[in-house]
Amino acid sequence: MSHKIAILGASGYTGAELVRLISTHPTMEIAALAADRKAGMDMGEVFPHFRHLTLPKLTKIEEIDFNAVDLVFCALPHATSQAVISELPKNLKIVDLSADFRLRDPAAYEKWYGQPHAAPDLQNEAVYGLTEFYREEIEAARFVAGTGCNAATGLYALLPLVMAGVIDTGEIVIDLKTGVSGAGRALKEHLLHAELSEGAMAYGIGGTHRHLGEFDQELSRAAGHPVEIQFTPHLIPANRGILATVYVKGDAEKIHRTLHRAYADEPFIVTLPMHFAPSTRDIRGSNFVHIGVYPDRREGRAIVVAALDNLTKGSSGQAVQNANLMLGEEETAGLTLAPLFP
Amino acid sequence: MSHKIAILGASGYTGAELVRLISTHPTMEIAALAADRKAGMDMGEVFPHFRHLTLPKLTKIEEIDFNAVDLVFCALPHATSQAVISELPKNLKIVDLSADFRLRDPAAYEKWYGQPHAAPDLQNEAVYGLTEFYREEIEAARFVAGTGCNAATGLYALLPLVMAGVIDTGEIVIDLKTGVSGAGRALKEHLLHAELSEGAMAYGIGGTHRHLGEFDQELSRAAGHPVEIQFTPHLIPANRGILATVYVKGDAEKIHRTLHRAYADEPFIVTLPMHFAPSTRDIRGSNFVHIGVYPDRREGRAIVVAALDNLTKGSSGQAVQNANLMLGEEETAGLTLAPLFP
Amino acid sequence: MSHKIAILGASGYTGAELVRLISTHPTMEIAALAADRKAGMDMGEVFPHFRHLTLPKLTKIEEIDFNAVDLVFCALPHATSQAVISELPKNLKIVDLSADFRLRDPAAYEKWYGQPHAAPDLQNEAVYGLTEFYREEIEAARFVAGTGCNAATGLYALLPLVMAGVIDTGEIVIDLKTGVSGAGRALKEHLLHAELSEGAMAYGIGGTHRHLGEFDQELSRAAGHPVEIQFTPHLIPANRGILATVYVKGDAEKIHRTLHRAYADEPFIVTLPMHFAPSTRDIRGSNFVHIGVYPDRREGRAIVVAALDNLTKGSSGQAVQNANLMLGEEETAGLTLAPLFP
Amino acid sequence: MSHKIAILGASGYTGAELVRLISTHPTMEIAALAADRKAGMDMGEVFPHFRHLTLPKLTKIEEIDFNAVDLVFCALPHATSQAVISELPKNLKIVDLSADFRLRDPAAYEKWYGQPHAAPDLQNEAVYGLTEFYREEIEAARFVAGTGCNAATGLYALLPLVMAGVIDTGEIVIDLKTGVSGAGRALKEHLLHAELSEGAMAYGIGGTHRHLGEFDQELSRAAGHPVEIQFTPHLIPANRGILATVYVKGDAEKIHRTLHRAYADEPFIVTLPMHFAPSTRDIRGSNFVHIGVYPDRREGRAIVVAALDNLTKGSSGQAVQNANLMLGEEETAGLTLAPLFP
Repeated sequence: MSHKIAILGASGYTGAELVRLISTHPTMEIAALAADRKAGMDMGEVFPHFRHLTLPKLTKIEEIDFNAVDLVFCALPHATSQAVISELPKNLKIVDLSADFRLRDPAAYEKWYGQPHAAPDLQNEAVYGLTEFYREEIEAARFVAGTGCNAATGLYALLPLVMAGVIDTGEIVIDLKTGVSGAGRALKEHLLHAELSEGAMAYGIGGTHRHLGEFDQELSRAAGHPVEIQFTPHLIPANRGILATVYVKGDAEKIHRTLHRAYADEPFIVTLPMHFAPSTRDIRGSNFVHIGVYPDRREGRAIVVAALDNLTKGSSGQAVQNANLMLGEEETAGLTLAPLFP
Repeated sequence: MSHKIAILGASGYTGAELVRLISTHPTMEIAALAADRKAGMDMGEVFPHFRHLTLPKLTKIEEIDFNAVDLVFCALPHATSQAVISELPKNLKIVDLSADFRLRDPAAYEKWYGQPHAAPDLQNEAVYGLTEFYREEIEAARFVAGTGCNAATGLYALLPLVMAGVIDTGEIVIDLKTGVSGAGRALKEHLLHAELSEGAMAYGIGGTHRHLGEFDQELSRAAGHPVEIQFTPHLIPANRGILATVYVKGDAEKIHRTLHRAYADEPFIVTLPMHFAPSTRDIRGSNFVHIGVYPDRREGRAIVVAALDNLTKGSSGQAVQNANLMLGEEETAGLTLAPLFP
Repeated sequence: MSHKIAILGASGYTGAELVRLISTHPTMEIAALAADRKAGMDMGEVFPHFRHLTLPKLTKIEEIDFNAVDLVFCALPHATSQAVISELPKNLKIVDLSADFRLRDPAAYEKWYGQPHAAPDLQNEAVYGLTEFYREEIEAARFVAGTGCNAATGLYALLPLVMAGVIDTGEIVIDLKTGVSGAGRALKEHLLHAELSEGAMAYGIGGTHRHLGEFDQELSRAAGHPVEIQFTPHLIPANRGILATVYVKGDAEKIHRTLHRAYADEPFIVTLPMHFAPSTRDIRGSNFVHIGVYPDRREGRAIVVAALDNLTKGSSGQAVQNANLMLGEEETAGLTLAPLFP
Repeated sequence: MSHKIAILGASGYTGAELVRLISTHPTMEIAALAADRKAGMDMGEVFPHFRHLTLPKLTKIEEIDFNAVDLVFCALPHATSQAVISELPKNLKIVDLSADFRLRDPAAYEKWYGQPHAAPDLQNEAVYGLTEFYREEIEAARFVAGTGCNAATGLYALLPLVMAGVIDTGEIVIDLKTGVSGAGRALKEHLLHAELSEGAMAYGIGGTHRHLGEFDQELSRAAGHPVEIQFTPHLIPANRGILATVYVKGDAEKIHRTLHRAYADEPFIVTLPMHFAPSTRDIRGSNFVHIGVYPDRREGRAIVVAALDNLTKGSSGQAVQNANLMLGEEETAGLTLAPLFP
């Protein structure tokens, strides 16, 4: 017996990634696809890689009969998400992939997003969607807010270490490299092939990237006291994948042991043996996370490297994983696809 | 109840692609993985993108107990394949992915490969693995020879047209663009990133590429008389995907209708509406083929464009599809993964 | 003593390529840079790769004192070009890089561009800028119209052959692969890195691409009778470079000899030895053209492959070459930069 | 009057880059090109992008008449360089591009390269080739040792800051992203297009990369006391370019001012305005360095980002710049080519 799924914002990359994953999911069935500006079109016109699938036509959100839907994935842009979700039936299961409900503190939201939150009640209800650290809350939740893809990558490297107190929380630097699909299907000059390929650049330098709001929130919660890290994302000429290189002060062996233990039973988190380096090519198109640990030549310092696919484990794969829990399904259902290499 | 599978040549790209596909196949189970030079290693060391899987260690071929195996995929290099398969038990089901058994005529083999065939009996037994055109023979076969990936792409565009007699068989030009993974994991200078990226080049120009042996064989068989085409492959800076642009003389409407009819019931071949162009991005990582047809401004001429993923439908996906038939399974089992885009 | 140069449309890729070439030109000096929407900005803000240069600020076209200018490069979009050039002083030397003045026949212009020409007098005056075939006219010209980059590539392969009558003009197929910079800095979805990389696609299929107007015009003129070719451009994941694979009927030896002789004294056209294949990587960033010839296995057929950089020899390098002639300078001045590889 | 130049190791990427730069150098002339394994070949066969040039044939080193040579560029692999240079005439001007003579301390050499130095006298004579910091020594030198490309990038960001004492030398982290050409034309699996494209990975993690020997040497010298930094290089899917993201403790304004002053008169080092980020695309193919500075949200911390082209300013361009000084030429001769973008 399958669950009826609606996807709002189906014409973007995370929407398409949801369709890809659900297309071989054993117990989910796509009942509705909404994309306002492309309403009336076939999904196969918008994304020709879905031409082989039989899918409902794209509609406007208001045309969807939400009574016939078991769970909604909301893959809408920031701010739009708040407005739309406020209007959805209050008993509907929802997984939001936008940035709108990630920050629990309204003041933090306003600080990072530059405006007051329009739906503080919902913000309060939303469970932060980092599955491995909020599993029980997610199982019981009606409404889950997906994490930022950069935040997820850094948090997988750091959360067990901060919880276990094995690193100095005052001295954390995350240098992150991300593929371009994380920026979405937006028509921006720096996302053109001719501008991006053969290049590498930092952006959001100096602590201005919004995902820092999530880092602050989750690392402070884990530490039990305020934690502020340094974080610099870089855009590299690849489509998928995030590599976070995390510089910490602590004992490398202890760090490796802590991560290994923390993730020993996790189906999607692979702690590599000491001295093995993750690469984004090794997780592309999959829900897996690879984490490696190295001691530095300077005693008491270590480097933790984490890699995941921003569209899968960093957003849509995570969303399906959370939906599985919310629907009482096997957590890994539909998510065991191996990475695509080469 | 699952079929025990052995893969010979598991450390190459087609071997890895077989593992990827079988890892989510409902009724196949990997019983043995052979890779002579890497015997003793874990597959996860050779291909870190498989670290999440529990797989048998890599062994030498002679260490495999073939009595415990239902079907062997042989992903070995040209010439090695002949030698190895000659030694395998005569009742074992085999799908070969090399070039060794594609040409039925020993003289044609010697012409294109420069040496006499070492196993002419097996050559005679082998069924050409272009599933959609040899389905019944494959269902009944013990031994199937996978097609060349370039040949498959061109043949999907042409075979129904030649069979139906709707194009001039004396005037066929195939201009083909292929990603680099078709060349395998070989250490060759022109396959280095620094040499290939930002470039495009033709190779095997003027009718010297070995896949012409397959084109000649299959198109002549379909036509009932000798057919010789022109064929120029090009290497482009992409990892996966083949795009064949085929110039033919014939009526575009009739051509489109013929292809549409021929593939109407095929699960993996999508004939696009007239005037729609395939792109390799739309089939990447999948077993699907996209075919488009355009009339030329010059009456009586048309362009047929076909796209497939060389590692999936062009080799390992095709191999699994054929194995499904040989094992009495659903033909599409394990092969419905949607393409990976972006 | 240096020539004062103005560039109209300096914020696009061809404008930037002009600045790059002129920055090391011995006798040209940039006197004015116009870019309407970016007027007031420094060129180093629009194109940070020019931060090391001292350049005039971007202005509006009407702010330029054309009396203080010796030659204008007009790198404006199609249609805008007509309007702007009509208003320029009638004695000013102009090299236009747009498509507006390439077609001599007003009817042909209207057919390919869908509207009547707004400046038929200028259209009549314009010399077609394929330097090697219009050298004397260009030396004497006030107004030169740069060629299409695709057209240039194909014409370099074909013009000497059509002039010499060594190929069948009724049976010419050009299959062309082009990098993305030819499409300009336009914000279009299919030009995004995430859409284009790892893909290959045909466009303008079936004889609809506007550069066919140029092919028709120049090949018919060379043949002395109407010639219509087949032409399919493809977009590949590279920034610069065009590779044209041209299928012709004729004797390969004779074809090679004809090209070799035609280009023997040309400073920028390199006819490779028989059986050598050009690659776009070998001409990237330079004004050189590489041409190779191969016999086909089918007697009486040959393949000619030509490669050039669309932004250099295909537009801005060609423009500088023509300006050199118009200004009485050495034809190769500023254009001998070696290709950038890797 | 031009200087006769010999290049040893002309068949590698740095050798080719030397030829590219010298091909438009006003006062250098290539008198000899050596490449042992390719002796007897034309340079245009080894590197078809040089087909337009008239160059001496490749020879063996021992065939070169060094009396007819004014300066030798030695672009040989590590260790080979020591052996070859030991045998060259003692009065010959030499610029070495290998790693063999960068470390002044024999013990440091042995530590990082795993074997004793074979030519300690020469090692002692060699001047470290970071032009902006050793200009006078280089002008007077007979023998200059080119820097590591990663080391150069980091040192441009750091040396003025360490000299001025405006950062904490105990807390420096360099996270560096490099294109693949820095690894040379070596046939290694991880350098294949199919392995590298669409990926990002760290290597030499934890303080094991040999360029740390140079960082230690130069930063300690500048500080007047031992300095040990943290340094992690990453391989990204691009051919050229290094981006170093440097995390320091110090006041951002003071840091920016210090860099701006230090490089105010430098022809190749561009200090960007505060809050501007360098990108490798902006220096590709050129001898320029771009440096940007950002304050971090955490007071007293800053991020310095530096970008250069590893083959130009990181090796062959630097070598020509040093050779210009050694030969009494204009320092910028042949090096003012603008970057290639897109």
